[in-house]
Amino acid sequence: MFKEHLRKIVENVEGAKAALLMEFDGIQVDSYAQGDVDIITLGTEFSQLMTHVKRTASILEVGDLEEMMVKTEDLILVFRVVNSDYFLTTALSSDGNFGKARFVLRLTVPRIMEEF
Amino acid sequence: MFKEHLRKIVENVEGAKAALLMEFDGIQVDSYAQGDVDIITLGTEFSQLMTHVKRTASILEVGDLEEMMVKTEDLILVFRVVNSDYFLTTALSSDGNFGKARFVLRLTVPRIMEEF
Repeated sequence: MFKEHLRKIVENVEGAKAALLMEFDGIQVDSYAQGDVDIITLGTEFSQLMTHVKRTASILEVGDLEEMMVKTEDLILVFRVVNSDYFLTTALSSDGNFGKARFVLRLTVPRIMEEF
Repeated sequence: MFKEHLRKIVENVEGAKAALLMEFDGIQVDSYAQGDVDIITLGTEFSQLMTHVKRTASILEVGDLEEMMVKTEDLILVFRVVNSDYFLTTALSSDGNFGKARFVLRLTVPRIMEEF
């Protein structure tokens, strides 16, 4: 159901290793991974962060959170809010196509919404 | 000293409203703002987040944090780590040139380092 959408994210973005649909409280809905990325652990840790950012954006009155990106030496994580309860995320290698990841996540959100 | 670098970020990036050099513990070093963006408050709130992300990246062993982006309905915030103590951030309108912001921040880091 969701796995097909997640697989397409990973296959369409150069350098993508995994994709995940998760609740803001850290519960995984579905995931797809290629290779050795532990997307569940990444998603769980960063879901707390997404919740923190969502709250901060609300306090600062800068509109709803839409997107987040974190880049480390080894990894790029791109997050896209689906609705108030869920977010999509994909993990890329640090030289992965970040612009394409943003684009593909944005396109995937309405397709995910159709399944709700 | 730093203000000149911060001013150049704001002037060179389409849609940029403010730039800030801050310690990870939330203490402002210097800032430059055009218009009504309260970059100090944004920086202070998000510095906690940067510290949180830095710690999470370390726990997950995905290399040092380099960059972060948060996009809300009204605002794009781009963060670039300078060293283990400081980060640069710029606030853009939500239709601002995010790619240019990343590029200019990356170029500015070595210039900031020269002043240390």
